[in-house]
Amino acid sequence: MVTAKRWVLVKQFVGKPKESDFCLEEETLPDEVNDGEVLCEAIYLSVDPYVRFLSSVMMKPGDTLVGEQIARVINSKNPKYEVGDVIRLSSGWRTHTLVTDMSQIDVMPVLGDLPVSLPLGAAGVTGLTALFGLNDKLKPVEGETVLVNSAAGAVGSVVGQIAKMKGCTVIGFAGTDDKVQWLTELGFDHAFNYKKVDVDEALSMAAPNGVHCYFDNVGGYLSTQTLPHIHRNGRVLIVGSISTYNDIGKSTGPYPFEDILKKCMTVNGFSIYDMYPKWRDGEAQLVDWIQQGKLQHRETITEGFDLMPNAFMGLFEGTCTGKALVKA
Amino acid sequence: MVTAKRWVLVKQFVGKPKESDFCLEEETLPDEVNDGEVLCEAIYLSVDPYVRFLSSVMMKPGDTLVGEQIARVINSKNPKYEVGDVIRLSSGWRTHTLVTDMSQIDVMPVLGDLPVSLPLGAAGVTGLTALFGLNDKLKPVEGETVLVNSAAGAVGSVVGQIAKMKGCTVIGFAGTDDKVQWLTELGFDHAFNYKKVDVDEALSMAAPNGVHCYFDNVGGYLSTQTLPHIHRNGRVLIVGSISTYNDIGKSTGPYPFEDILKKCMTVNGFSIYDMYPKWRDGEAQLVDWIQQGKLQHRETITEGFDLMPNAFMGLFEGTCTGKALVKA
Repeated sequence: MVTAKRWVLVKQFVGKPKESDFCLEEETLPDEVNDGEVLCEAIYLSVDPYVRFLSSVMMKPGDTLVGEQIARVINSKNPKYEVGDVIRLSSGWRTHTLVTDMSQIDVMPVLGDLPVSLPLGAAGVTGLTALFGLNDKLKPVEGETVLVNSAAGAVGSVVGQIAKMKGCTVIGFAGTDDKVQWLTELGFDHAFNYKKVDVDEALSMAAPNGVHCYFDNVGGYLSTQTLPHIHRNGRVLIVGSISTYNDIGKSTGPYPFEDILKKCMTVNGFSIYDMYPKWRDGEAQLVDWIQQGKLQHRETITEGFDLMPNAFMGLFEGTCTGKALVKA
Repeated sequence: MVTAKRWVLVKQFVGKPKESDFCLEEETLPDEVNDGEVLCEAIYLSVDPYVRFLSSVMMKPGDTLVGEQIARVINSKNPKYEVGDVIRLSSGWRTHTLVTDMSQIDVMPVLGDLPVSLPLGAAGVTGLTALFGLNDKLKPVEGETVLVNSAAGAVGSVVGQIAKMKGCTVIGFAGTDDKVQWLTELGFDHAFNYKKVDVDEALSMAAPNGVHCYFDNVGGYLSTQTLPHIHRNGRVLIVGSISTYNDIGKSTGPYPFEDILKKCMTVNGFSIYDMYPKWRDGEAQLVDWIQQGKLQHRETITEGFDLMPNAFMGLFEGTCTGKALVKA
């Protein structure tokens, strides 16, 4: 028998996620599997801010927390999978999974020598979010100014590098000096620690003619400060709103509607799941850039499945650079 | 000699426009005109909320207030215009204008028996704003639900009627029971006095499956209440924000960014001036609908040029239905 651990949501989050919202449970899975089934063991697990945003939609108390993982097949009676295969799986925060519904398994990109963790990040959903959000929605052209916040995060760091490849002036906001240093190394034209600068002054300096494309992962007050700097007919893509996910009640700020009107902006809310038909091509593109050294990536890896809630709570403290992962 | 009156901006508005912000001045124009010039006398003048919104951009103290008028030619040495011709003119709040720059004159649509005031409203800029905002930007299709606020206004009343022609379910918010009654007569499926109903409850009832297209003239708190009712992938067009134009400082409310993200909305700010190449065709369409009885319109006419500031200030008190005009 295999003892599987899983993290269960105890109750819906109120405010910041806290330890008592999570419960580690054990369950016994059979060693043997039935025809068509696969048993696998987690290697890397993804922790993502969207889980907080959509927690009440995606989970109810008692459910396993949602998320992707990279896992190794340890038993198989499915001709498509052999013991030792490494797969990508949407089975949530669990160490072992008996896969009976093969739609839980997502095709892995061809990685060559690249780390197997990449399909959870720069060659997975966060990389795709950056790629398609920028190229298919914001559509910056050479010479335009692109602003991204949470810029040292899994999505933002890829956004900035792709925008540089397209010949844009790239501005990034991050929350620590080390992150800002990394953005500079990545080739960002302007990188700021938003906690230390006057955002309005920084944007007046870095984008004197306005921001054409604003890739927003943060929302809230940072967006309030940014919108007056958007160029006429500028494009805004709202991909996340991490600054307000943990609000109890709704936090408030100046209405943005007059800004949107005055500049004739286009503001879109974005879900990467609407781009699903293009994922395979996008992942191949991302892998290619990484192999060629054109796209850098970082991972912040927490060691130990038992620390998954801590890794998740850390997302809201700004403690990680690049993709946040847990090594089981 | 002709004595012309004009309304001058004394100082930039702070908060609600008030009488002391305006000054009535007189100036003397020559009876005779030079070659190429036209002298004309106002018949109807337009008062519009955008003048408050863009006052600091469009005017400085001492300037004549901006706006369109319908005028009669009283002298001409321009072969294109004869005495008695009725023209549409962008010369601001003035009784008489010596036109030396012919680009101030805008072509009139062919009106037949329709009133000459119409090219300031339902067959002019406000009608075009409704037509192009709805058809070119929001693009509702048959069976979708369209919401418009300030629905008994010059723009909103046309939006709702065109949306009905397209086979949509139409919801309108207005601020008096008389206006709501008119919306019902116009064929709106649901019309509410937003001051008397719970907006959230009203929308839950009228749009149980969500609003596909939201034509927003009001902004502020009414938009805050509306956004949670937008359908997934719904479209929002911000055409005005009259509820916040007179704010001193920026009024605040819940950040809308999470709503936009959650529903993957598209929010656009709209300027009718970006559609200028299509204006002539649009006016012909509007005139045709009015002549066929398919498009109803109302005007709230204030008698007397000296009352222009009062008519303008009335815009922010909700005292007018349809297009607000002054008869000189």
